[in-house]
Amino acid sequence: MATKISIPKGTRDFSPIEMNKRNYIFDTIREVYSLYGFQQIETPALEQLSTLMGKYGEEGDKLLFKILDSGSYFGDFSYEQLFSQLIKESLRKGYLKIYKNHKFKSNMDLNTLDQKLRALIIDLIQRGVGREKGLRYDLTVPFARYVVMHRDEITFPFKRYQIQPVWRADRPQKGRYREFYQCDADVVGSDSLLNEVELMQIVDTVFTRFGIRVCIKINNRKILTGIAEIIGEADKIVDITVAIDKLDKIGLDNVNAELREKGIGDEAIAKLQPIILLSGTNEEKLVTLKEVLADSETGLKGVEESEFILSTLKNLGLKNEIELDLTLARGLNYYTGAIFEVKALDVQIGSITGGGRYDNLTGVFGLSGVSGVGISFGADRIFDVLNQLDLYPKEAVNATQVLFINFGEKEVAFSMQVLAQVRAAGIRAEIFPDASKMKKQMGYANSKNIPFVVLVGENEMNEGKVTLKNMETGEQRLVTAQELIEELC
Amino acid sequence: MATKISIPKGTRDFSPIEMNKRNYIFDTIREVYSLYGFQQIETPALEQLSTLMGKYGEEGDKLLFKILDSGSYFGDFSYEQLFSQLIKESLRKGYLKIYKNHKFKSNMDLNTLDQKLRALIIDLIQRGVGREKGLRYDLTVPFARYVVMHRDEITFPFKRYQIQPVWRADRPQKGRYREFYQCDADVVGSDSLLNEVELMQIVDTVFTRFGIRVCIKINNRKILTGIAEIIGEADKIVDITVAIDKLDKIGLDNVNAELREKGIGDEAIAKLQPIILLSGTNEEKLVTLKEVLADSETGLKGVEESEFILSTLKNLGLKNEIELDLTLARGLNYYTGAIFEVKALDVQIGSITGGGRYDNLTGVFGLSGVSGVGISFGADRIFDVLNQLDLYPKEAVNATQVLFINFGEKEVAFSMQVLAQVRAAGIRAEIFPDASKMKKQMGYANSKNIPFVVLVGENEMNEGKVTLKNMETGEQRLVTAQELIEELC
Repeated sequence: MATKISIPKGTRDFSPIEMNKRNYIFDTIREVYSLYGFQQIETPALEQLSTLMGKYGEEGDKLLFKILDSGSYFGDFSYEQLFSQLIKESLRKGYLKIYKNHKFKSNMDLNTLDQKLRALIIDLIQRGVGREKGLRYDLTVPFARYVVMHRDEITFPFKRYQIQPVWRADRPQKGRYREFYQCDADVVGSDSLLNEVELMQIVDTVFTRFGIRVCIKINNRKILTGIAEIIGEADKIVDITVAIDKLDKIGLDNVNAELREKGIGDEAIAKLQPIILLSGTNEEKLVTLKEVLADSETGLKGVEESEFILSTLKNLGLKNEIELDLTLARGLNYYTGAIFEVKALDVQIGSITGGGRYDNLTGVFGLSGVSGVGISFGADRIFDVLNQLDLYPKEAVNATQVLFINFGEKEVAFSMQVLAQVRAAGIRAEIFPDASKMKKQMGYANSKNIPFVVLVGENEMNEGKVTLKNMETGEQRLVTAQELIEELC
Repeated sequence: MATKISIPKGTRDFSPIEMNKRNYIFDTIREVYSLYGFQQIETPALEQLSTLMGKYGEEGDKLLFKILDSGSYFGDFSYEQLFSQLIKESLRKGYLKIYKNHKFKSNMDLNTLDQKLRALIIDLIQRGVGREKGLRYDLTVPFARYVVMHRDEITFPFKRYQIQPVWRADRPQKGRYREFYQCDADVVGSDSLLNEVELMQIVDTVFTRFGIRVCIKINNRKILTGIAEIIGEADKIVDITVAIDKLDKIGLDNVNAELREKGIGDEAIAKLQPIILLSGTNEEKLVTLKEVLADSETGLKGVEESEFILSTLKNLGLKNEIELDLTLARGLNYYTGAIFEVKALDVQIGSITGGGRYDNLTGVFGLSGVSGVGISFGADRIFDVLNQLDLYPKEAVNATQVLFINFGEKEVAFSMQVLAQVRAAGIRAEIFPDASKMKKQMGYANSKNIPFVVLVGENEMNEGKVTLKNMETGEQRLVTAQELIEELC
């Protein structure tokens, strides 16, 4: 029987070691968010389905997990109610007719009736659906809902962070989960570019603390719009960035060929040349862009924004490289200003952090004029990168610092007094609860990676001391409780 | 439109201030759990429905939130499939008959057909249900499932803690939520009473840190069994404890009358007198119980266990009172040894923590012989108690420590340099992102309860200093970056 137990596909248990590592990641991010004045909120896992539906496109809607109270499978209707409704509505609509003795008949053939009843059942369910619940799909829509619901209590600009799981009924596959954490920070209610600057400082600080070398890529939706404007191909901007991105791999001729294939005219391709070949420092790139985009007001605005962000950050001196990258085009329909993405330099893995500025976050909930900018750290990928580079600080992932071996009742009574002092000093300490064989107790210390054990026997009790053993070196010595604490602190 | 937005009944948004308070509670509990060598795990919110069903009694099963992937409302069946199945099965079972022209008839009257089809639809859904998922209802069953699934990786005794939300489709009411956090710690795989002792130390330490004065009530299931044995009324143990509990309020005669009413014989009531009147110190109570329970092996075992736990704790010196209380009878069907419950002394509220020892945690998943003991802190009630007694430490719930006022671009450039140093020193600091009116910026500081603001103008920049203003006293003075850091650290 035990072998049949499982957890749903795409979900995970986190063991103590994984939890320590994950806590290290979340605590680091949380601490840096706080340093910058971001405040934590939490929203419920369950949202009204009406809050979630229609916010993530048709594909997203399909990936929503829907929740039903037990006994009420159809929103407002229970099974029984649904069926009664079905019969009632069928009679009302004339699909079924009652004749003598409460028997009934239908004038339709079975296929037609089947069709009619199917449509009816779906309609009935839909009516109930409005009042159903779903599991949140991301943290952005619940945040927008939060801002609207709490707008009278919030002082804007509102700098919030949120670290909670989200759920997606995606096809589970390597590295893609149906339940996973997001770690978002957003500022809403301020158009100032200082927000973009500070978010980049946050990214820089977090990865510096992790010891992960990264490249921060930055772009601006307005620059992309400007490019589309000047070449008169507004709808081809994705094709263009995809092609440009291949320059290093396939060379200029092939890039131009690809652009032609995508239906971009020769004149436009000619205008695109300085952009495809854009290189040099960020400053050099901005100079080129200013020339190329001279005729696009929007494009120049994007250049100006990027200039401010990059020059301010240069003065502040980031630890990591930041690069203006025109091929960065994430979530085009969503973002309206700066866009960012972070790549690890020493590990081959996709983007490990991303974000950008968006207008009108809360418009869909009836509150307009709230723009914002945000970032999201990809905790699962950061977890993998830290593992691959072996960057977890020992003290962050270690658990119990010392195990007291249990030699029996009298020794335990003595040990418990010392243990209380050790714990009062903030040292994570255990006593093996049973007076098991020494081998078993030492095995426990080893498997939990506990670096020290304390032994208390007749001798130690007589002297009022304990024996402290270093599990790595094997070295052991007799110490007082005070010395023990000093050794372990 | 905005006014129609809501969150599901029984769920909550947590604002920044609430989050700070909740984090203070969880961090305190987490820290104390770690001090005692407990390690954190997390399990997914989604469990197989088969893992959850049948574990919480009939009532509990009804309170499970069931989850359906989008488009598959009935486990394996979509709406359309369900309906086709319904028609097919109806034909197969003869509820419906096809006659000429694919028309169909039924020989049943409408009510009977309705009944038959209802049963059928439920049956079809149930068949799909086996492969559905549910939201976890508590942390105990997922923990048991975890232990069984990971038994080969776990070193026993396994001391784990878990702080995660759970969901119950309960009727929402004041203080009862459909989504709430539990904070559990359990030791499994050890019968040693030291585990009970340490859990009581944890309770004592946590509430001492909170500054909440509590009384820890302790009892033992075996003592209750013993009492039932000696009076020959094994099934009346709940009636007995309920009646005894009323002694202070209604007096001995009325307690005895109530026992008689519940069908307990005169002889049994006579034997119960010393237990009803049990008083004095824990030691005195244990002496009496030893006499009364002399003929019950189980009862004496319970007394002996309580004696060990209480005397060990006495030697260790708890800060809070611990009391042997025979009227404590929580979860009788579940617990098999010691039972605990914690009451706040200065606030009228139910139990704020509880737990006990149980046998055979994992038997239901096919792994027998795993007993354990655990506690669970009631975070929501502790939150209320701390609020009512105003016990949150200021530094724990405060957020940003200093706000830099924004006077414009040049001042910002200067401020950002100081800000970077301040944050590098670990001080939570913000700059107002827009150069808004002074009044608005000061209002922001006030509403976020930020205790200090920094002002940077022409003067300050010339001197290379900043003006630090204490928002409470109104006092302000010119300081260097270094002095600023020293002031705020």
